[in-house]
Amino acid sequence: MYRPWIWITVCLLCATMIYGGKVLVFPVDGSHWVNMKVIIEDLHARGHQVSVVRTSDSWYIKETSPFYTSITLETESGFDEDTLTTFVSHMLEIQRTGKSAWMLFKLAMEEAQETAELHKKTNKMLEQIFENKDFLRSLQDAKYDLVLADPFIPVGVILAHYLKLPLVLNVRWTSQGEGHFSIAPSPLSYVPLTGTVLSDKMSFLERLLNVIVFCFTEYQFTQHVSPTYKGLVDKYLGPDKDFASLFQAADLWLMRVDFVFEFPRPTMPNVVYVGGFQCKPAKPLPEHLEEFVQSSGEHGFIIMSLGTLIGELPHDLADEIAAAFAKLPQKVIWRHKGDRPATLGNNTLLVDWMPQNDLLGHSKIKLFVAHGGTNGVQEAIYHGVPIVGLPLILDQPDNLLRIEVRGAGKIIDIFSMNEDIFFQGIQEVLNEPSYRMNMQRLSRLHRDQPMKPLDTALFWIEFVMRHKGAAHLRTESYRLPWYSYHSVDVILFLLTIALLILLFFAGLVWFCFRLCLKRKVKSD
Amino acid sequence: MYRPWIWITVCLLCATMIYGGKVLVFPVDGSHWVNMKVIIEDLHARGHQVSVVRTSDSWYIKETSPFYTSITLETESGFDEDTLTTFVSHMLEIQRTGKSAWMLFKLAMEEAQETAELHKKTNKMLEQIFENKDFLRSLQDAKYDLVLADPFIPVGVILAHYLKLPLVLNVRWTSQGEGHFSIAPSPLSYVPLTGTVLSDKMSFLERLLNVIVFCFTEYQFTQHVSPTYKGLVDKYLGPDKDFASLFQAADLWLMRVDFVFEFPRPTMPNVVYVGGFQCKPAKPLPEHLEEFVQSSGEHGFIIMSLGTLIGELPHDLADEIAAAFAKLPQKVIWRHKGDRPATLGNNTLLVDWMPQNDLLGHSKIKLFVAHGGTNGVQEAIYHGVPIVGLPLILDQPDNLLRIEVRGAGKIIDIFSMNEDIFFQGIQEVLNEPSYRMNMQRLSRLHRDQPMKPLDTALFWIEFVMRHKGAAHLRTESYRLPWYSYHSVDVILFLLTIALLILLFFAGLVWFCFRLCLKRKVKSD
Repeated sequence: MYRPWIWITVCLLCATMIYGGKVLVFPVDGSHWVNMKVIIEDLHARGHQVSVVRTSDSWYIKETSPFYTSITLETESGFDEDTLTTFVSHMLEIQRTGKSAWMLFKLAMEEAQETAELHKKTNKMLEQIFENKDFLRSLQDAKYDLVLADPFIPVGVILAHYLKLPLVLNVRWTSQGEGHFSIAPSPLSYVPLTGTVLSDKMSFLERLLNVIVFCFTEYQFTQHVSPTYKGLVDKYLGPDKDFASLFQAADLWLMRVDFVFEFPRPTMPNVVYVGGFQCKPAKPLPEHLEEFVQSSGEHGFIIMSLGTLIGELPHDLADEIAAAFAKLPQKVIWRHKGDRPATLGNNTLLVDWMPQNDLLGHSKIKLFVAHGGTNGVQEAIYHGVPIVGLPLILDQPDNLLRIEVRGAGKIIDIFSMNEDIFFQGIQEVLNEPSYRMNMQRLSRLHRDQPMKPLDTALFWIEFVMRHKGAAHLRTESYRLPWYSYHSVDVILFLLTIALLILLFFAGLVWFCFRLCLKRKVKSD
Repeated sequence: MYRPWIWITVCLLCATMIYGGKVLVFPVDGSHWVNMKVIIEDLHARGHQVSVVRTSDSWYIKETSPFYTSITLETESGFDEDTLTTFVSHMLEIQRTGKSAWMLFKLAMEEAQETAELHKKTNKMLEQIFENKDFLRSLQDAKYDLVLADPFIPVGVILAHYLKLPLVLNVRWTSQGEGHFSIAPSPLSYVPLTGTVLSDKMSFLERLLNVIVFCFTEYQFTQHVSPTYKGLVDKYLGPDKDFASLFQAADLWLMRVDFVFEFPRPTMPNVVYVGGFQCKPAKPLPEHLEEFVQSSGEHGFIIMSLGTLIGELPHDLADEIAAAFAKLPQKVIWRHKGDRPATLGNNTLLVDWMPQNDLLGHSKIKLFVAHGGTNGVQEAIYHGVPIVGLPLILDQPDNLLRIEVRGAGKIIDIFSMNEDIFFQGIQEVLNEPSYRMNMQRLSRLHRDQPMKPLDTALFWIEFVMRHKGAAHLRTESYRLPWYSYHSVDVILFLLTIALLILLFFAGLVWFCFRLCLKRKVKSD
């Protein structure tokens, strides 16, 4: 007899009794939307009404959908595809010119400037929203039960506070960087910052780098990001509200990682890990693809994709990659933009788009050549496919490092690589069984959860709706000033007392000494 | 369509495919055993073989059981009922003589001494175990899959390391105090120590007290507890092992609290909350009790119990309590040791023992008069019964404080109370609907979990067996020296660099100044 059945039946009965809730969603465009959409579809399937706030220049978030009603803002999002791809191309350009410390510093400064620019645009958009009284009234009148927001752009976070609604975050990043840094204690000795490409085991110099990067990030946040929104927050939420505290006051954090992917670190009771919730079993392939991969025989096949944000690869680089692929006995499916490389082998199929999840879940797949976006890495873990990583920008090197230190993949520096290096790398991951075994171990760990991550996400969203928040899971420590939070005032007080006691005794000794001296002088 | 069904079916299939594991249990006697027994019975029901290590003087852990095989050590446990009840009586005696700061300090010192004594006895017991080579060999030969231990007494923790077995802790306390303090960052500004009777919202003076108590606890641990085991740990586990790190290296922590009971605080990925796992729906009452509670009519009934460790109450106190009960329209069931109080009313039934869980789950129950032991408080939350708390010793005041600050109960100082105060307190909790509503809100929150806490505990125990540990959920930060963990070395290095730069520029300015001065002198 295994009792979860009884318990889960009760839970499901309670859960189905919930009236269909009204959820107001503030997504972030691009790859973030891929994740949010999965949750929205599930919310819809469970009988909830979903309204999605989008901008008129949105590039992924469609105006009409069977799963949600859209609310279109006639403003610029400040986070459009053009800005992003131009930014990415520019970063690539800098990276390719050489990786000196100066260049990396310059890159970090440019990235910081781009971020500051993004927040300025977002603030402007928020100002437009707050000036639009009709729009605000319509949001208030709709009587939503919950705001579900991606806090990478803080529109949803700020409006949830204005509307006084429970707030659930679907989060990987906040304005302070990796989501945990906004909410959980993060000892810098073993919690690496994104962008440092460090693991949780660091040398002294690595820990030094981590502290420096942390200081830089905090400086950027407190000096350039937080002040951008100060006027707006003061005006519409009240002068007692602090921008950072708006995030910390969220009811629940659905964190898009788990500890198979992320290094273990402190967490908080209102953080729920839903990493890989978008992964699902493979569906059958389209006929022409199935035929192609079956033709690989016992050697199996490889897929390669560098994500959506990367434009054309330089010709020479594409040629090196194609030539390496041509030497393999495996078949290759390569999502490639631009001209057909001259060195392309017969075993390689170029495609504009591929059903990545279905290919990763195919029985004949041997290897995934990936740029290291979170979604792709999570899918590789889910299906247990080892990775050869060609990280380009943003968090991609950090994501792939997490795979490499677990022995489930190998990183190759795309900027210095040639045909041979790439070929050797692929051969190593294909022929050394430990890579596949380690990735399959990660896959087993990831799948061995009491509940599917997507169901966990849905359970907790509905939990917040049922109980109109989740205040009991959230500390209010963020209300403390920093010196109280870190007990600096108490320590200073204790030191002062210790000093006074010391001074008192020193005074006493001095007094006795003087007394003795006087007596001696007298008696002399 | 709600997909958890599919996922859970897969999980259950996987789970049932697991071969029956072999689990070696190191319980702690007394009320802790009540909890461990529940897990053991469930492990047995799920087809695992359980061996329980007990001492020949054990007072709750039976030698024969249908659920486990016992391994009896012919040693003294150092944690016997007599020591404990004598200790409790003594503490009560001190408390009743008045609650001056000096008395409380004296009490803390005596408690510390008792704790030190307990660890000395435990160390002696461990030495006897390690000298018994046949016993150790039999443990090794039995090829256990897992050690499940209550770390309040560190026998299981040390032996798990010696046997190189995965370690799961069923924990509320370690040798360092409340379990979290051994493993998770615990900012003293909002994480109160047990014994301080503080909440998570503290004034400056309260934070000061919390820091002082923390320093005292750490001093006690590092100077008196940890050194007790040093010789043994060095000899049998190796000189590189540190006593505190043995706890931190545990694979999984089944923490016997949840955040309906405990204040929100930082936690770690390998901490699983199973608070209230021992609670279960009420069974029908024995006939005479059912008759008695039914006779209460619409007024309902009250139960009172001060736990197992308290001997007879002083006559005068028992009389005051009985007289207050006699004035109530409710019926009362009172678990009472000693003589029948002279003031006992007809509405009060004295019992030696009562089916507490079944009474708390009865539809006619109105109130629980409790001493605040964790088990009782969890049961009250589970059944949604408000509490009038008469805390005596140990963690009881802290447990009840958690109920009081949520408005689900009221604490009365048993040492200064009289009939009137007690009567007024009971009346207030009975008649002010907020107490019952708040406790029922806690109950709803506690019960609204994706899985029953006991099933969660079982899932994770089996998870550790399936994967032979849970290293991916555990930080290895405990291997860092304290100055590295807190980045003290990095901060000192950065300060030194800053100082050198400052000195260099100061030198430069001084040099320029001197140069100008010289020239001026010359030109003059």
